[in-house]
Amino acid sequence: MTTIKYYWEDFTPGWEYESPPRTLSARQITAFAREYDPQSYHTDEEAAKSSPFGGLIASGWQTCSIAMRLMCDGYLLQTSCIGSPGLDELRWFRPVRPGDAVRLHTTVLEQTRSLKDASRGSVKFRWDVLNQKDEVVCSMTGRQYYVRRTPAQ
Amino acid sequence: MTTIKYYWEDFTPGWEYESPPRTLSARQITAFAREYDPQSYHTDEEAAKSSPFGGLIASGWQTCSIAMRLMCDGYLLQTSCIGSPGLDELRWFRPVRPGDAVRLHTTVLEQTRSLKDASRGSVKFRWDVLNQKDEVVCSMTGRQYYVRRTPAQ
Repeated sequence: MTTIKYYWEDFTPGWEYESPPRTLSARQITAFAREYDPQSYHTDEEAAKSSPFGGLIASGWQTCSIAMRLMCDGYLLQTSCIGSPGLDELRWFRPVRPGDAVRLHTTVLEQTRSLKDASRGSVKFRWDVLNQKDEVVCSMTGRQYYVRRTPAQ
Repeated sequence: MTTIKYYWEDFTPGWEYESPPRTLSARQITAFAREYDPQSYHTDEEAAKSSPFGGLIASGWQTCSIAMRLMCDGYLLQTSCIGSPGLDELRWFRPVRPGDAVRLHTTVLEQTRSLKDASRGSVKFRWDVLNQKDEVVCSMTGRQYYVRRTPAQ
């Protein structure tokens, strides 16, 4: 049982978090892709060489999933988060290649009270995934729902 | 080596595809979540019972990843697809629970020539993921890049 440290109230605009880096191996890239995204530039190092990417790259869904894991490990499991309605924008700017070390940078954009439920609120975030060259490889904006520490009066 | 059957030219507005259903087990849900999204309502059947979802649900990233796999198996591996710049919108409307059978419905919204490269174009899609009750559990709009069968003149 994890203790909740952060509630809706704590995610004020400008709140930031940066995760440690996580290095992705060719084996991890192909394992994910064989199950979920078996395009040859994600599954086959040889075939990938003749693709427009010139070599193996991670599925964009794996990049998002790793961002989620970095978020969980960094702070989300210590929060009152109760899900997400989705994203307003998701961009894959650059490929993630074997050996790349990616990290998550979270910024709070907006904090919104729930009009329907005094015990909850939503938070709009920007999530950037950066590589070891500080290039943004993926960027998302979206919302998550959080329980409030103190219900609205 | 897969033969390319569909090029950019084939994805005219209104083109549709519907995949066969794929059933998700509790084991598959928790396996994905332990690696990528270890929130307790994704990893722990007991803990999930006292969550707002009342039971185990799949990570939204797994729903997207399964949609990608259904797309690959259904048509994408037979196309000239060379990646995606991202999504304009992603919504998770309903939870996906153990035993749910989800399927992908693809619709082409727009077909756009590349101004930079006569050999390529982009296609804007709507992708809906439906469950066995025909409820939309997840919906996305976004673009993919495709090589043209015949370069623009």
